[in-house]
Amino acid sequence: MHRTHNCGELRPEHVNQKVTLSGWVQRKRDKGGMIWIDLRDRYGITQLAFDESKTDAEVLKRIEKIGREYVIKATGTVIERYSKNNNIPTGEIEVFPDEIIILSQSETPPFTIEDESDGSDELRMKYRYLDIRRNPVREALMLRHKIAQETRKYLDTFDFVEVETPNLIKSTPEGARDFVVPSRMHPGSFYALPQSPQTFKQLLMLGGMDKYFQIVKCYRDEDLRADRQPEFTQIDCEMAFVEQDDIMKTFEGLMKHLFNQVKNIKIETPFKRMTWHDAMDKYGSDKPDIRFDMEIHELTSLVQNQGFKVFDMVEYVGGICAKKAASYTRKQLDELTKFVQKPQIGAKGLVYVKCNEDGSFKSSVDKFFDAEALKKWADAFNAEPGDLLLLLAGDKRKTQEQLCELRLEMGNQLDLRKPGTFAPLWIVDFPLLEWDEETQRFYAMHHPFTSAKTEDNGFFDTDPGKIRANAYDMVINGVELGGGSIRIHNREDQARMFKLLGFTTEEAESQFGFLMNAFRYGVPPHGGIAFGFDRVCALFGGSDSIRDYIAFPKNNAGRDVMIDAPAPIANTQLSELELKLNLKPKH
Amino acid sequence: MHRTHNCGELRPEHVNQKVTLSGWVQRKRDKGGMIWIDLRDRYGITQLAFDESKTDAEVLKRIEKIGREYVIKATGTVIERYSKNNNIPTGEIEVFPDEIIILSQSETPPFTIEDESDGSDELRMKYRYLDIRRNPVREALMLRHKIAQETRKYLDTFDFVEVETPNLIKSTPEGARDFVVPSRMHPGSFYALPQSPQTFKQLLMLGGMDKYFQIVKCYRDEDLRADRQPEFTQIDCEMAFVEQDDIMKTFEGLMKHLFNQVKNIKIETPFKRMTWHDAMDKYGSDKPDIRFDMEIHELTSLVQNQGFKVFDMVEYVGGICAKKAASYTRKQLDELTKFVQKPQIGAKGLVYVKCNEDGSFKSSVDKFFDAEALKKWADAFNAEPGDLLLLLAGDKRKTQEQLCELRLEMGNQLDLRKPGTFAPLWIVDFPLLEWDEETQRFYAMHHPFTSAKTEDNGFFDTDPGKIRANAYDMVINGVELGGGSIRIHNREDQARMFKLLGFTTEEAESQFGFLMNAFRYGVPPHGGIAFGFDRVCALFGGSDSIRDYIAFPKNNAGRDVMIDAPAPIANTQLSELELKLNLKPKH
Repeated sequence: MHRTHNCGELRPEHVNQKVTLSGWVQRKRDKGGMIWIDLRDRYGITQLAFDESKTDAEVLKRIEKIGREYVIKATGTVIERYSKNNNIPTGEIEVFPDEIIILSQSETPPFTIEDESDGSDELRMKYRYLDIRRNPVREALMLRHKIAQETRKYLDTFDFVEVETPNLIKSTPEGARDFVVPSRMHPGSFYALPQSPQTFKQLLMLGGMDKYFQIVKCYRDEDLRADRQPEFTQIDCEMAFVEQDDIMKTFEGLMKHLFNQVKNIKIETPFKRMTWHDAMDKYGSDKPDIRFDMEIHELTSLVQNQGFKVFDMVEYVGGICAKKAASYTRKQLDELTKFVQKPQIGAKGLVYVKCNEDGSFKSSVDKFFDAEALKKWADAFNAEPGDLLLLLAGDKRKTQEQLCELRLEMGNQLDLRKPGTFAPLWIVDFPLLEWDEETQRFYAMHHPFTSAKTEDNGFFDTDPGKIRANAYDMVINGVELGGGSIRIHNREDQARMFKLLGFTTEEAESQFGFLMNAFRYGVPPHGGIAFGFDRVCALFGGSDSIRDYIAFPKNNAGRDVMIDAPAPIANTQLSELELKLNLKPKH
Repeated sequence: MHRTHNCGELRPEHVNQKVTLSGWVQRKRDKGGMIWIDLRDRYGITQLAFDESKTDAEVLKRIEKIGREYVIKATGTVIERYSKNNNIPTGEIEVFPDEIIILSQSETPPFTIEDESDGSDELRMKYRYLDIRRNPVREALMLRHKIAQETRKYLDTFDFVEVETPNLIKSTPEGARDFVVPSRMHPGSFYALPQSPQTFKQLLMLGGMDKYFQIVKCYRDEDLRADRQPEFTQIDCEMAFVEQDDIMKTFEGLMKHLFNQVKNIKIETPFKRMTWHDAMDKYGSDKPDIRFDMEIHELTSLVQNQGFKVFDMVEYVGGICAKKAASYTRKQLDELTKFVQKPQIGAKGLVYVKCNEDGSFKSSVDKFFDAEALKKWADAFNAEPGDLLLLLAGDKRKTQEQLCELRLEMGNQLDLRKPGTFAPLWIVDFPLLEWDEETQRFYAMHHPFTSAKTEDNGFFDTDPGKIRANAYDMVINGVELGGGSIRIHNREDQARMFKLLGFTTEEAESQFGFLMNAFRYGVPPHGGIAFGFDRVCALFGGSDSIRDYIAFPKNNAGRDVMIDAPAPIANTQLSELELKLNLKPKH
């Protein structure tokens, strides 16, 4: 062992002990006569002190060469510091070395290894191994470790069995695009990397495993958005002989356990529940941030047919009431208008009503509506003097989604989305299906294995869009952490679902024949949930970006810029796989 | 919840309670007037009892239809059994149901769901989800779960951090063949699936993570042998600022912990250590089963130049002494000769010497050697009256390997390889390099990142084959469970190693440039180990086959016969990847 202690553990009780520390040179300070080195490892920083009049000449010569990020091994005596540093746990002592060994030299790193680095994102990704030396990155990875261990501990306690499902499986065209893996032993055939272990975990239930979980890598070949990764990690779970409430109870328990163990925060169970329709109507989103109220209210009937064409010609008029924001200036209101007009949001304009402290109203539609009318609007929101009403108009769902964005923006501006506050809820009663105008067909809102609510069975023949699913999402602070459903567990229902999704019998058979066949042999009712583990980590860490919680993430183009992957392969490899490149001409 | 209790938990104290159980019908017995159903779930079996004179007619009608593997839900009263079954924990009670719901029907399964099934391997793999219902398979998966959890617990206690490394990486032609993944966003480029997280874990050490572990899927596109899988799982670990002894101590500690927690067996630490050369000389193998002695002894000088040509013309004569086996019959000895002559072993013939109880000798070479000569051989083995000497001759290493096979066979025949006995050891001082006659070059015996023993530095220029590595394998009962090494941690040594392995500077740069570059910025001395997790499970479970411990294994052709993968993909998929099949004509 190249050390007797780590750089975070020496305390006054170690004074006079001979110790050996190893680590990286964080900083060297030379104050004429005295030299100090801050030696860093994962556990902390310990100060090494050298006195030009006392330290061995050989040691002094050696430390002269040492620069930042050198790895050294220092043996010496622990002494009490004259000027203590209360900012670090080792701040009461320092080590006075009589031997120094340079274990590894370092060139000047491409960016500073400090909490706040001067390196750009791309540079830090290229040298991720240096980035990991920085406290915030290391702490993010250790938080991830802690959450993983506590998740397993909780699930193990409840008799869940961790089962590894295969990663070389079969491609299924439904859903997102698969990554595929050519088979050398079976030329012309391909494995696919799993987008989730969905069918395997269902087969485990069918196989009697009763309770399954896995913290597992999944893969999606998507055109990457800002916060997506081609490989990501799920906490994947399934239970047999359960109903929706059993699963929700078990997994709000998991979240409560994690908050308690990892962040020492108590959260209340059971979580609030909200139907998908309510969430859309009140928050314009199926993942509302309910740390603050500011619910959306519909005003359509109240505002139409009073001569204001903008309102009269639309399906829906709705708004939010921002408490104590009547003092917003013209400039602030203009900026809000610009905000909702951004192409990503796409509103035409914004109507505001200031409920002044003196009981009067000032609105952007004073020409069309008198004080009496505006009073009625204000009453609809239970607005008080000093509040600000913000209204949007248009198609119902689209306008609600725009109001969602506006609500979150106002939440930010008014400081209502408090970091460190966590407001969990369940969204339930999702529609089973989504109609797609372009392809003129239904898609499964969750996936084709989700069961329908028994009471909605009648809609299968009459109005499939109305069928509600036994599906549920867990949402905290506007982040969808996970979702799941009670699954279909018989052949007939599964066949009906595939048919509704436009599968021919042959397609269903070739893609999911093994599952349909399995359904012949006694299937327990079952259901489960999958959490986006990267997102759980980001939520717990207080960050918006999952990338911070992944040791070696890929960039937005799906590249690992550190190892430079993907990359061309050798012709012999292609030839062994009996494949040929067929590159399209670039424009 | 479709149950109030599981099928393994009811006891006499539950008598008179109303309970609901759900599970699979293991067996239905109709004894005129009384009907019994054994209801099974993961936790056990509970007997349901129906009395034709007392049970509700509707219930009786319903159970008439029920067959094996139906999933049912039974609500009824717990009663004490008249004739108790002491073989199962629930054997003192039975449940008298007044309601039965059929949750799922079952066709007759393709094989019996019993501890000993009548299904062939291939059939059970095709219906793996039914195979998993059998106790031995379920128990194997639960053993795997337990070992995984205990591994994590131990490593977590010692401050190891579980870090996920990426699965979409870059192909490196050195070593086994990679599985590759075509990139759609970067046509013509490919990711590769990792054969191990080797370079990433080294970068984590460089990044200051200090202690890393991961239970992680790895991938090798090999022509499969009996007990290999294209995807397999490693317990992968790395530590910084350590020397070889620190790693060995930490991980024999892990094994001790696992034996203790999982099998309630105490094993002694430190483990025995043996150099690679000793292992080869004494056991003819770098993974000896030392549950029994029967060491190999070299007799070359003792037996040569005495007129027996077979011995005189070879490099090496060696043998083993099988205690108390002088009573072997002619037939048994002939079978041993046939055994060593099998093509997989390849010996020319077998020489035996019986050390008779009366002090005389009987050998297959009596024509060439007199009793005095044979006495000397016997003394070399410290043989006693009643023992049997078995000798082979030929090239040294090859003959030692043949003697290894013979020794293991004799160990089996004489019942010396006791199941439930575990004899761990470390093999150390491996050669760094292996010379390959065919390609006329050196290959790394472990991998190109393994460091050489400092004292062997001189051999780099003179005799590279003699360099010993800082490498170690953990072996238990003849199974190599894991291996590792202290890594090279500076650019110069790594460059020298790549050169020795025939890499040009450009090849080293394009494949491992990121690592060589990382070595510029302060590298801690580090090393690690990786265990074959599937093999650890098989050892603990007492099986020779890792496949029993994998939920959904692939067959020897790398196929998942359950989901029928690999399989052709759609032309649109190929076209999006800008690839074309280039199938070679089949012969």
